Amino acid sequence: MTRPSLLNFFCVGNRTIDLLCGRASVCRLHSSQTMRSVASRAVSGFRPSKVAVVTKTTRCEFEQQRYRFAGLSEVDLTQLLALKGSSYSGLLERHNIHTRNVEHIVKSLKKEGIEVRVVRRGEYDEEVVRWADAIISAGGDGTMLLVASKVFSKDKPIVGVNTDPERSEGHLCLPVHYTHAFSEALERLQRGEFRWQWRQRIRLHLEGTGINPTPVDLHEQQLSLEQHHLAHRITTLERRRDDSFSEPNLLPVRSLNEIFIGESLSSRYINMSKPWHSFCSNPVTFPKHIPSPALTSPSLSVQHRVKYKSLDPHLTFSLHRASYYEISVDDGPWEKQKSSGLSICTGTGSKAWSYNINKLVEQAVEDLLKIGKLQTGLDIPLDPGFIEKVTEEYNQSLVFSPEDQRLFFSIREPIVNRVFSSIRQRGFAKKVCVRSRCWDACMVVDGGTSFEFNDGAIATISISDEDQLRTVLL
Amino acid sequence: MTRPSLLNFFCVGNRTIDLLCGRASVCRLHSSQTMRSVASRAVSGFRPSKVAVVTKTTRCEFEQQRYRFAGLSEVDLTQLLALKGSSYSGLLERHNIHTRNVEHIVKSLKKEGIEVRVVRRGEYDEEVVRWADAIISAGGDGTMLLVASKVFSKDKPIVGVNTDPERSEGHLCLPVHYTHAFSEALERLQRGEFRWQWRQRIRLHLEGTGINPTPVDLHEQQLSLEQHHLAHRITTLERRRDDSFSEPNLLPVRSLNEIFIGESLSSRYINMSKPWHSFCSNPVTFPKHIPSPALTSPSLSVQHRVKYKSLDPHLTFSLHRASYYEISVDDGPWEKQKSSGLSICTGTGSKAWSYNINKLVEQAVEDLLKIGKLQTGLDIPLDPGFIEKVTEEYNQSLVFSPEDQRLFFSIREPIVNRVFSSIRQRGFAKKVCVRSRCWDACMVVDGGTSFEFNDGAIATISISDEDQLRTVLL
Repeated sequence: MTRPSLLNFFCVGNRTIDLLCGRASVCRLHSSQTMRSVASRAVSGFRPSKVAVVTKTTRCEFEQQRYRFAGLSEVDLTQLLALKGSSYSGLLERHNIHTRNVEHIVKSLKKEGIEVRVVRRGEYDEEVVRWADAIISAGGDGTMLLVASKVFSKDKPIVGVNTDPERSEGHLCLPVHYTHAFSEALERLQRGEFRWQWRQRIRLHLEGTGINPTPVDLHEQQLSLEQHHLAHRITTLERRRDDSFSEPNLLPVRSLNEIFIGESLSSRYINMSKPWHSFCSNPVTFPKHIPSPALTSPSLSVQHRVKYKSLDPHLTFSLHRASYYEISVDDGPWEKQKSSGLSICTGTGSKAWSYNINKLVEQAVEDLLKIGKLQTGLDIPLDPGFIEKVTEEYNQSLVFSPEDQRLFFSIREPIVNRVFSSIRQRGFAKKVCVRSRCWDACMVVDGGTSFEFNDGAIATISISDEDQLRTVLL
Repeated sequence: MTRPSLLNFFCVGNRTIDLLCGRASVCRLHSSQTMRSVASRAVSGFRPSKVAVVTKTTRCEFEQQRYRFAGLSEVDLTQLLALKGSSYSGLLERHNIHTRNVEHIVKSLKKEGIEVRVVRRGEYDEEVVRWADAIISAGGDGTMLLVASKVFSKDKPIVGVNTDPERSEGHLCLPVHYTHAFSEALERLQRGEFRWQWRQRIRLHLEGTGINPTPVDLHEQQLSLEQHHLAHRITTLERRRDDSFSEPNLLPVRSLNEIFIGESLSSRYINMSKPWHSFCSNPVTFPKHIPSPALTSPSLSVQHRVKYKSLDPHLTFSLHRASYYEISVDDGPWEKQKSSGLSICTGTGSKAWSYNINKLVEQAVEDLLKIGKLQTGLDIPLDPGFIEKVTEEYNQSLVFSPEDQRLFFSIREPIVNRVFSSIRQRGFAKKVCVRSRCWDACMVVDGGTSFEFNDGAIATISISDEDQLRTVLL
């Protein structure tokens, strides 16, 4: 129950030796050799007194809350979901599985005399982080990303438990086995039969932004929605003259998976170019509008929505817009790029979005090897087993260690033409600088938080050991 | 000058023979053999009396208009653009090039006694289409897509002229040569030295939508912005009970390039999860808010914007969300899919977004062939020339004829795991049905118009000869 006061040696692979000295400090020595300390099994393990358990919102809860205000009965909800092809009872089942697994975690913790605080996603904040000795994420990978997003200290361990292994991948969570045997996980932690996994994270510096107005689609002549931003744009100009925005600012976020940069594909002005029903023979009510923050009354009529739509009957917005930017890798020369976005990931993130951007499917590998075979006349195998093997090896080469200090950048769907150069489509780096040439772009951190990243803004993306996230490897 | 009254035979490849009979009707016979009519050179060509020239908005015009209300001088504008790394004089130069090329087109047309109407993007509508015998798109591919989007008749020919060949790709435009020699193009058209190119287009049926409220991010417990949609959701439920929404509706759009389906990555609620300045040591004003339609006054103060932001300080919105849907190809079994979207394109579109989704870069091909070489021990060449050849052949296999009646579907960045099946990642089809399991998705037509496509909605995507767009091949 007491915090370890002895020095503990843990083996953490061939890069570091951890010295866990009480609570206040963690010293780390880097060693390129693998060492196994004889003392590792005899030392105290990890024994937090206060643990916060952050739980995900299940889809069932979400759907229930959505209709809470409408006073729908469960029967109504069931019907409504059925109309959409969803099964309310199915959602309820997943919800119950999650809830049982959370209860199991809480019980196991309490049995050890640990003070437990169960915190829902929406309630999780820095105060919880300060309070806890350790934080357990009870959900899927998304919940882990949320939990990590509020932890800025290397001293605060995070443990992920996958509360619905049949539905969630849980890459960031403990092996599925421990979902139903959390006591066992706890024992191992207490006995020190684990090692710390120091997941590197990305930090972001941003400069040259000032206040960016919302650009209107180039296609659209009507700029009335833009006007109110002009005052701010002028302010930008004036401020720039004062040179008061030239310092790069370190943003208050650390990315565990990746930074994704791209046109935000803002739906703000999504609307059909004309009231569609002037064409359509079978009128269906198709309102698509931007909710005004003032219009929160449930009694809002359809009529009002139609009125809003007519404010901009000709406004169309290009949803798919290529992202334009300039990129400099490891202080190399700036290169213009046009693509559907740019991903910069950690080792942890190399199994996430970046993986999906870069991986090949067997169908593509087969097509390519067929061409290779035709072109060379060599007897390249094309049987499914071989295709699978080659595909798997290729895809696995995209994954690297969460503890690796390098970034991995990928240009998603590069558009190569006369104007844009062709630097490597992907590669490792220590530092990546990006200058936006976008109309309405974002930098998205771990798929959850975004920053405006418009024309002229410069982002510097790097990794610092200070930002590591302490997780466990059982 | 008079409209041709004779029957004209044109050869149009191995699929069709066109009989252009006056103005009122076009008869088409399908033939699988290529035929060349001796009479083709002796017949009348294409002689419109009234031509609409639809022009793009140049970036220069756009930037000028943006700041028109602020009364910025050209010097101010130059400075502001320079701050962003753009060159005002550069934009002006492109603008002048475009303008000169438009003037050249107009002059050439008038010289032939053709009545010309120059129409800006924002002014282009069905009335212009009705008025014109033919429409010239003076811009880039985007302008062509816009022009095509309002043409629903096979009788209305569209001609694209690339007015800035150094900056625009102009895949849908006449060869670059004709940009500066439009009279020559006109002569050839009049002499019949061309053939009609019938570009197939996609039509969309949609059912099961009713009124879809804006979903709130699963991550967010606060649903206040959602409430006002509830009234409409209940209406949906009631209407469904009446079974009044079960008919699939043919949407009033035809897609020349592609339909893209995916989570709209709505920026509606983009905001940081907390007022960021509680963390940040170097405060930078980072407002990111959704403009309310009511706030169109240029004198809107920053203070008001800060107030808006505080309405939802805890609202984060997941920007990168995978798209969930079910897909059935050519009436095959429904398969669950999770990916970053689904593209369904025409032959015309096979060179556009679909191409960028599916193409391989040389770096990937090289990595793959290296693995193949290691695995087989065969002497597979890895020199740049060979890599380039194989890559080019692979990428070219993605392109097919604009006149091909097939659709080509591609699952973008498929996420393959235990839950989701792995049908072909891409392939040809006559018909594709998609059922949305998305929170906040869109169907985007030619990157310009979108339709809500949320949970439960079913789209049927197909090609019909009726919807072909008549363009010219010089």
